[in-house]
Amino acid sequence: MSETHTSDETEARDQLLAIAEQFYDQFADGDIPRMSLPTRSKSNIEYDEDADVWVYGDSQSTRSANSVRGARKLLKSVYTVDFLAQQLDEGRSSTLRELYYLSESWDEAEAQFNDQSESDKLVEDLEIVSGVKREDFHMRPEESGAKVMGPLRLREQTRRGDREIHCQEDVGQGGYQIPNNPDTIDFLDTDADFVLCVETGGMRDRLVENGFDDDYNAIVVHLGGQPARATRRLTKRLHDELDLPVTVFTDGDPWSYRIYGSVAYGSIKSAHLSEYLATPQAQFIGIRPQDIVDYDLPTDPLSDSDVNALESELEDPRFQSDFWTEQIGLQLDIDKKAEQQALASRGLDFVTDTYLPERLAEMGVL
Amino acid sequence: MSETHTSDETEARDQLLAIAEQFYDQFADGDIPRMSLPTRSKSNIEYDEDADVWVYGDSQSTRSANSVRGARKLLKSVYTVDFLAQQLDEGRSSTLRELYYLSESWDEAEAQFNDQSESDKLVEDLEIVSGVKREDFHMRPEESGAKVMGPLRLREQTRRGDREIHCQEDVGQGGYQIPNNPDTIDFLDTDADFVLCVETGGMRDRLVENGFDDDYNAIVVHLGGQPARATRRLTKRLHDELDLPVTVFTDGDPWSYRIYGSVAYGSIKSAHLSEYLATPQAQFIGIRPQDIVDYDLPTDPLSDSDVNALESELEDPRFQSDFWTEQIGLQLDIDKKAEQQALASRGLDFVTDTYLPERLAEMGVL
Repeated sequence: MSETHTSDETEARDQLLAIAEQFYDQFADGDIPRMSLPTRSKSNIEYDEDADVWVYGDSQSTRSANSVRGARKLLKSVYTVDFLAQQLDEGRSSTLRELYYLSESWDEAEAQFNDQSESDKLVEDLEIVSGVKREDFHMRPEESGAKVMGPLRLREQTRRGDREIHCQEDVGQGGYQIPNNPDTIDFLDTDADFVLCVETGGMRDRLVENGFDDDYNAIVVHLGGQPARATRRLTKRLHDELDLPVTVFTDGDPWSYRIYGSVAYGSIKSAHLSEYLATPQAQFIGIRPQDIVDYDLPTDPLSDSDVNALESELEDPRFQSDFWTEQIGLQLDIDKKAEQQALASRGLDFVTDTYLPERLAEMGVL
Repeated sequence: MSETHTSDETEARDQLLAIAEQFYDQFADGDIPRMSLPTRSKSNIEYDEDADVWVYGDSQSTRSANSVRGARKLLKSVYTVDFLAQQLDEGRSSTLRELYYLSESWDEAEAQFNDQSESDKLVEDLEIVSGVKREDFHMRPEESGAKVMGPLRLREQTRRGDREIHCQEDVGQGGYQIPNNPDTIDFLDTDADFVLCVETGGMRDRLVENGFDDDYNAIVVHLGGQPARATRRLTKRLHDELDLPVTVFTDGDPWSYRIYGSVAYGSIKSAHLSEYLATPQAQFIGIRPQDIVDYDLPTDPLSDSDVNALESELEDPRFQSDFWTEQIGLQLDIDKKAEQQALASRGLDFVTDTYLPERLAEMGVL
């Protein structure tokens, strides 16, 4: 399929080969081959105040062939670059786990990976050094994206041709399944006024059953817990390309605030991709600790790990606003957490008739 | 929406109200109200040799209002019947978790559930006593079904009207999302020769990328680990209504054999639904311990809990065949397990070019 290469694929391939070329040139110049990249540790993660996302700091690490360990790393890099370039050439793709297993078939035993965390990390390193995203290397994630329901017509390029899909009219109750690489999607048109990302499947189904997406022109994106890269990427694109406000509706506990954080600010693990994945304009709907009080929601007490997580959020630069300081302080005070579905204690329609319309109006979204 | 009731809904409602009527009659006759149901413990599960599935035995438990504990159980049953009957009347649905939270709004505090396991169990009891499935009470599961890709055209009744969907031509790379209640689906036509259920998302994506569904006229059903009720129900219907052989492709470890078991034989937890959910004709593809040996697959050693699980499978009536005794014995012997994706160690196309065609031919499916 080499005649159908897109410019992204060609560029990804060129950037990868440039890494190998660099080693070649270093050899030719009589230098010991080496590769520099930002130090990928917590101490080298900085919060970029302007962009409102996490990025790597200035600290650099160098991998050099002047040690056996370093030489082995570079050998693995070269084999991986070779595999990825060939994969792009053939228009194929693979998963991170397949890459790990595939390395067992490489002729040079020293190039084989010891475990999958090693190959995963190397792919991330190659992303950083080449400036190309994993998806453009055609590395698919294990976890696929979640589901979308709402007034949006899109075109997805699939391996079997283009598909035009309206995410209400052409899908079942389950919605449109986000593909592994959402950059195969073009948005055609939308009547949506905003995007509502929802944490749990139960609440997603409640909103769809109550026709919330229809009544309020909302694109409902199911996050399904900690959202996959594909889901975060699609959400960002809905914001940037369609100019839609993005809101996030989760349970009311510290783990759910992190889910919001990963949509809005990016995660430490993928700080090199914040620009591509994070939607700093995303707004938090709730469940807020204040909601637990105001609506007298059924709750569970905070566990020790909940308290630790809340305290660590108080230290987290992402949660330094007055809003979060106040809400997290209140939660530690009342010592309670609540789930989204706890709103059902006020009736099955409370969330769509009262809670969301009031909150979204307050937030200026409606 | 009461004018649009289907006969299933009307029957479900009647069966539920019959439970309440029975209590009423018992009161009227001067009897202490009571409800009998099969004892739901492991000791009262029997393997039905004829039907090849798990069913409840003859042991019965009685809940009677002659104790405070029993009376409270019956009170909760009546409130739940009332809620479910009203829900059916209004054409609504809800999740198990919502039911638990909703009980907090009931006027009688004694009728409220203490935790979700209590309300979950009560709904299962009502399924057994009424002979009506949870889905027909319009109780949605939390976990939705998985994804389907293959030459199948279906019609799904949604709350927004009927949708006709071809599970290759009208869906993206992600496939068709199985709704919570797959009995809203009618199969229209299919060119499929068989159904292939696949455990992991990575392997599902490999099969779809390699066009396996297209080349072999296979309906690929992604199980996503332990399959949801909706997924098992759909698989059974594909077998029964379209007369398609069903095959199951999982990792090669004891937990994956249980996944096969739950598709084929039903689970202990839902023994009252085996007839509705289990596909006893389903055949196991692999990964088999013999495959680990024959294909020299990359493996991990068995953990203690793996060994225990294998030993308990040797005792399990579902795994008493020569095939399973031999394979499980071999696995304990070689002390190894392997994942589906380990087939990638022989190249990305090995699974679709060699492994599956050879195995399916051996099994008489191709």
